[in-house]
Amino acid sequence: MSELKSLLEKTLYEEIPLTREIGIVVTSASPQLIELAAPLAPNINHKCTAFGGSLYAVAVLTGWSMVFARLHAAGLHAHIVIQDAQIEYLLPVVETIKARCELVSDADFDRCLKLFKRKGRGRIELAVEIITQQGVAVKFRGQYVIHN
Amino acid sequence: MSELKSLLEKTLYEEIPLTREIGIVVTSASPQLIELAAPLAPNINHKCTAFGGSLYAVAVLTGWSMVFARLHAAGLHAHIVIQDAQIEYLLPVVETIKARCELVSDADFDRCLKLFKRKGRGRIELAVEIITQQGVAVKFRGQYVIHN
Repeated sequence: MSELKSLLEKTLYEEIPLTREIGIVVTSASPQLIELAAPLAPNINHKCTAFGGSLYAVAVLTGWSMVFARLHAAGLHAHIVIQDAQIEYLLPVVETIKARCELVSDADFDRCLKLFKRKGRGRIELAVEIITQQGVAVKFRGQYVIHN
Repeated sequence: MSELKSLLEKTLYEEIPLTREIGIVVTSASPQLIELAAPLAPNINHKCTAFGGSLYAVAVLTGWSMVFARLHAAGLHAHIVIQDAQIEYLLPVVETIKARCELVSDADFDRCLKLFKRKGRGRIELAVEIITQQGVAVKFRGQYVIHN
């Protein structure tokens, strides 16, 4: 397991105990790609699909983890909080919940970290998708704030 | 406890097992007002505030419960699913999580139920707030679909 992956998993479990109940695991962790997963069983509803609240939780934590990975890569420490978010449910999830946050450009994060270094506060918008065998099941966008 | 209140609580626990882990309780239930609560302890993060994913879960369930209450009052049975949602985090929550969905007008629901009876599918947008001693901490809007 990569250093970042085990650090991230440990941090999630310690900082947000509910991640253990949901069964969150980190499957990929780099400043370009974060993938989290959670088993269906603890997150199921009576229709045998994943509960919308669990899907949101996995998505919001995936974005949070990307901010964590970027701060870690930059050697910075900061609080990371979610400010607002939008979520669309496109397909039911009937398998392991798999969420993915991929960043192709560094520009937005560079701007966010620059502002944080100068003013002690930065903001970044991230997109997360939950992907199933049938395609994209959930689209999530979250605005995260980092602050001292 | 009112009949609706106990039926709703039973339904939440049965249909979404995670509601037990989060500690959801129904504090008010009528077709005009739904109030759910959850203790801070199982939903806490390391900053001793409520985890954003838990706040979302309580909010989305409060809206879901309003749809449930309206269907129950109308003597109808339907599946209730969340289609999309927006959430804004305004203040940290450092106490019992209390969510509230209040409906002053019946017009939107009447339209939704009419469509459901005619076409087997209706849609309703609901606003939920999480309220603390310091004021409104979370604003949530969810679009719910009811279908056969």
